[in-house]
Amino acid sequence: MEVKFQAWDTAGKPIRCKAAMARKAGEPLVMEEVEVAPPKAWEVRIKILCTSLCHSDVTFWKTPAGPASFFPRIFGHEAAGVVESVGENVEEVKGGDLVLPIFQRNCGECRDCKSEKGNACSKFPVQFYEGMPRDGTSRFTDMNGEIVHHFFGVSSFAEYTVVDISQVVKMSLEIPIDKACLLSCGVTTGVGAACKFARVEEGSVVAIFGLGAVGLAVAEGARLCKASRIIGVDLNPEKFEIGKKFGITDFVNPTSCGEKSVSQVIQEMTDGGADYCFECIGLASLMADAFNSSRQGGGKTVVLGVEMHGSPLSINAYEILRGRTVMGCLFGGLKPKSDISSFAKMYLDHELNLDGFITHEVSFKDINQAFDLLLQGKSLRCIIWMDNISNGK
Amino acid sequence: MEVKFQAWDTAGKPIRCKAAMARKAGEPLVMEEVEVAPPKAWEVRIKILCTSLCHSDVTFWKTPAGPASFFPRIFGHEAAGVVESVGENVEEVKGGDLVLPIFQRNCGECRDCKSEKGNACSKFPVQFYEGMPRDGTSRFTDMNGEIVHHFFGVSSFAEYTVVDISQVVKMSLEIPIDKACLLSCGVTTGVGAACKFARVEEGSVVAIFGLGAVGLAVAEGARLCKASRIIGVDLNPEKFEIGKKFGITDFVNPTSCGEKSVSQVIQEMTDGGADYCFECIGLASLMADAFNSSRQGGGKTVVLGVEMHGSPLSINAYEILRGRTVMGCLFGGLKPKSDISSFAKMYLDHELNLDGFITHEVSFKDINQAFDLLLQGKSLRCIIWMDNISNGK
Ligand SMILES: NC(=O)c1ccc[n+]([C@@H]2O[C@H](COP(=O)([O-])OP(=O)(O)OC[C@H]3O[C@@H](n4cnc5c(N)ncnc54)[C@H](O)[C@@H]3O)[C@@H](O)[C@H]2O)c1
Ligand SMILES: NC(=O)c1ccc[n+]([C@@H]2O[C@H](COP(=O)([O-])OP(=O)(O)OC[C@H]3O[C@@H](n4cnc5c(N)ncnc54)[C@H](O)[C@@H]3O)[C@@H](O)[C@H]2O)c1
Ligand SMILES: [Zn+2]
Ligand SMILES: [Zn+2]
Ligand SMILES: [Zn+2]
Ligand SMILES: [Zn+2]
Repeated sequence: MEVKFQAWDTAGKPIRCKAAMARKAGEPLVMEEVEVAPPKAWEVRIKILCTSLCHSDVTFWKTPAGPASFFPRIFGHEAAGVVESVGENVEEVKGGDLVLPIFQRNCGECRDCKSEKGNACSKFPVQFYEGMPRDGTSRFTDMNGEIVHHFFGVSSFAEYTVVDISQVVKMSLEIPIDKACLLSCGVTTGVGAACKFARVEEGSVVAIFGLGAVGLAVAEGARLCKASRIIGVDLNPEKFEIGKKFGITDFVNPTSCGEKSVSQVIQEMTDGGADYCFECIGLASLMADAFNSSRQGGGKTVVLGVEMHGSPLSINAYEILRGRTVMGCLFGGLKPKSDISSFAKMYLDHELNLDGFITHEVSFKDINQAFDLLLQGKSLRCIIWMDNISNGK
Repeated sequence: MEVKFQAWDTAGKPIRCKAAMARKAGEPLVMEEVEVAPPKAWEVRIKILCTSLCHSDVTFWKTPAGPASFFPRIFGHEAAGVVESVGENVEEVKGGDLVLPIFQRNCGECRDCKSEKGNACSKFPVQFYEGMPRDGTSRFTDMNGEIVHHFFGVSSFAEYTVVDISQVVKMSLEIPIDKACLLSCGVTTGVGAACKFARVEEGSVVAIFGLGAVGLAVAEGARLCKASRIIGVDLNPEKFEIGKKFGITDFVNPTSCGEKSVSQVIQEMTDGGADYCFECIGLASLMADAFNSSRQGGGKTVVLGVEMHGSPLSINAYEILRGRTVMGCLFGGLKPKSDISSFAKMYLDHELNLDGFITHEVSFKDINQAFDLLLQGKSLRCIIWMDNISNGK
């Protein structure tokens, strides 16, 4: 696929464009006109080419109150786009570059970005991502002049968005745009968590709780790491068929465990528990089930799900003493600026399956269909093409 | 110190001897006569030379009810002794050998014992350690012929005890008996947790919650691993003075934090949290404080404390996503049969401080004083000398 670059004559001026606005928690998005301010220093204005829906959007879209609930808001954080213009001090990208906006920051300068140990970035204080990271303000206003909140510093459910340079990754044009889009959150999260964060060892037994795109990307990563057995847990039996294509070898449906708990079933299937248990749903109770399914003496539980209700994770304080570990990460523990390109290369080298994650495509005006498909458990990732792009496809 | 071996003429017969009996939860131990049956197959009868009190004894001694509460019981699990006789199939040790009875099993044959990954032993089903591991029965009876329960498979608060061979480690005679005793639980747990289980890295910042023998042994381990800063947290200011001798560089008393929580204070002191936080108290709330004191992007919380009230550990499910890890282990993640000897060697080579942990000594008949000293926060380890031995000292 080729992106047709146009001469941008919009630099420095506000842009009016379409956005899928979330006005109220849990209610369908509404197509509205918004004004997108020009990028300030260290910021990049991006023309979105395509975006996709991740369960994290759904979780915050559903959250009606609390410190992380902001409306009106423009959701969306998996996307690929092209740079429209850049603010002062931005040298890393220029107009016309293909980029991924990424929720995980990577300033490259702070102690954490420089450390080998993880992918935290501590340049900006932790906040709820409802504005730009440096000054907390918004670049979106609606047609009544009211502020519209950002989401995860990305807000890709709009034709144009403004993103801090610490959250922008330049991509080579070799990889198709929709596949690049997948690398901006869910798939990278799962593969990275298995291969880099947990470092699944050859021959190990892996259990995955939740077979959405994140869970199946964990399976893809576990397969790449040569796990001997990959057990999938999901309430939706349709996920079992698609799961086989991602290397899942055994399935457990919690509704079919009878008197036993899921963790008892997995403990028995594996003669003492799985070596690695990944939670890819976002429920504290399933995080505990994952923990209880892990082996004593080395079993690792990896939390990837974003808890839907803000509930704490509660684990038995004696069971952790038996040599178990619980660990969690965002974005698979990867540093966006240095790690995404290797995944793109693995795709181009036919080592990494990305195509299988794209189960549906819709045009931007039909974005609510993408919500329905995910909520009904029918899709893994639904690519949402911006209208002008899908025409040019 | 030299142990005088006598010709054992008791083999195969029951032995009558003194034991410090726990008849009721939380009540002083009572010196009674008990009958100790001869060892069955795979078992070793040990003449205890000295023993010491660990907080785990106190925790179970205080527990009045529930699945882990058994009375009458003989407590004690830190000890050094000499083999009196062995049951069938025991070839690893023989009468007269200096041994440590160890609560952590190490059969050497099961999948877990053979694995490099941890120190779990899965030969015998997990149980509450109130009897012998192979058949669950007791080797102790009181003078009314009633069964007396074991503790952790060790029960060293008796002149003689019977221990499964999977819980017996042969020691060289070079190390003084009281120092060897320390290696049978608390000190090994702390040093092992820092150096082998968590693998504290050079230059890292360590926070230790609870400055008893276990916490100070973590400090000793962190010092050996060249930590740059070791922060000690304790309610008892007397621990701060003794802590300095173990390399503690900073102290935090939770009662002096004012409006702030301990974790806020540590987050501020360390510019974002400690690299390693060890919980060495046994309270779920402190385990959570330790977690909240750990750095995002790589911070590790190591649970060593045995929860006193059986409360679950509850952690914020978002904070774990920021690249944090919670892990726990028994016996420092070490395998008793292969790892203890290297600690003994380190002591003999003047690399490992053991002497500093012995703050008090009493004779067996005064064992309740050891309880008072630990409960009042006055002792680290109080060596309890069996009467016949202390005479011969
Ligand atoms: N850590 C990160 O950086 C990161 C990145 C992306 C997504 N996430 C999170 O990962 C999770 C998964 O995201 P996704 O996009 O793959 O979601 P998804 O909706 O596609 O998949 C979730 C799966 O869980 C299953 N499920 C739901 N409830 C269940 C239950 N009680 N028992 C068993 N299975 C159940 C569903 O049937 C579905 O197959 C979400 O919590 C999301 O917020 C985290
Ligand atoms: N994991 C293992 O294998 C293992 C082995 C040995 C001991 N343990 C456990 O380790 C823990 C420590 O054992 P120990 O023998 O060193 O105990 P100890 O009683 O000598 O030390 C505990 C310390 O914690 C401090 N403390 C108590 N409550 C506190 C609070 N609320 N805030 C701050 N400090 C507090 C006390 O003042 C004391 O200094 C216990 O839970 C014990 O059961 C575990
Ligand atoms: Zn996402
Ligand atoms: Zn940074
Ligand atoms: Zn102990
Ligand atoms: Zn074993």
